[in-house]
Amino acid sequence: MPRVSQDHLDARRRQILDGARSCFARYGYEGATVRRLEEATGLSRGAIFHHFRDKESLFLALAEDDVLRMTEVVAEQGLVQVMHDLLSTKPAGEENPADWLGTRLEVSRRLRTDPEFRSRWAERSEQLTTATRERLLRQREAGKLRDDVDVVVLTAFLELVLEGLVSHLAMGLPADDLDPVLDLVEETVRRHRRSS
Amino acid sequence: MPRVSQDHLDARRRQILDGARSCFARYGYEGATVRRLEEATGLSRGAIFHHFRDKESLFLALAEDDVLRMTEVVAEQGLVQVMHDLLSTKPAGEENPADWLGTRLEVSRRLRTDPEFRSRWAERSEQLTTATRERLLRQREAGKLRDDVDVVVLTAFLELVLEGLVSHLAMGLPADDLDPVLDLVEETVRRHRRSS
Repeated sequence: MPRVSQDHLDARRRQILDGARSCFARYGYEGATVRRLEEATGLSRGAIFHHFRDKESLFLALAEDDVLRMTEVVAEQGLVQVMHDLLSTKPAGEENPADWLGTRLEVSRRLRTDPEFRSRWAERSEQLTTATRERLLRQREAGKLRDDVDVVVLTAFLELVLEGLVSHLAMGLPADDLDPVLDLVEETVRRHRRSS
Repeated sequence: MPRVSQDHLDARRRQILDGARSCFARYGYEGATVRRLEEATGLSRGAIFHHFRDKESLFLALAEDDVLRMTEVVAEQGLVQVMHDLLSTKPAGEENPADWLGTRLEVSRRLRTDPEFRSRWAERSEQLTTATRERLLRQREAGKLRDDVDVVVLTAFLELVLEGLVSHLAMGLPADDLDPVLDLVEETVRRHRRSS
């Protein structure tokens, strides 16, 4: 019954990723020892590394998984919604943005400190950029986007603000007054309504 | 001759700060050992710690020094100019923005990892926020600023973009295409010209 078996494999993979996510978020990449990964996932190292070659592969799969989820939100609601999600606290669960904030912070930290990681990450990061740019192009076709600034510039602008927000939260600075700032960011990429 | 003595003290203090700046930028806070600080400043530990109580005080003085220099640029040319400076490579020297990028990165890192540092830093950080807000208020009085968004929101917006830029540079991402993004940021806070 290969079908059931595949479902089982997928579920196990998901179990590992969910456990590992909170483990990396809590202890950081170096601090997430194999023992802690076992505790967090409720699985043996044998089971974990049956699914992922090593810790590095597990972390990259996790980060890629998060990028895909962010990409879906971007495609449907835009990058500014991703930022609003970062600010809101939702009940714990798979869609809790705080979960992927942890991974994102760890990615940022490794990009700063591990040049080799940069090349491995570049491809994943490109996915989010592409999703953002494509969403903006669709918005432009729908007449919702300003048309006096290149979409490449608007994409880079949104990504820069996202990075600032991630860094802001990472530094533990107060974020309860940032929603109006994100509204301003949203308005900046939209078509300006003329007073008529 | 107290006057000459004060000049001498000031020059010595400046010598220590300049050497320490490159030392912290190169090795990070923990990696900047007393021996390395001696090498970088060309002074003995006795001389260094005659001027600064300990390494922590030296680092804070340095970061505060940088904030004051940034504050001066902000007061005269605005926070967006600080960001343009970050992107430009100037000849090595006291006003080389890359120098204070190093310190700024170290501040960001310690804010993320050292909760105790946060409270010590809060006051210094407030200076830059105040300078930015005051500059914006003057711009508004001069009719150069948009008047439909609170200055507090515009200040937070600019600071978020600055933080994103610092993080972007820290991660070694390409920055040669960011000037049009900063132009967009500048335009966002300015008074919108109506087509008339």
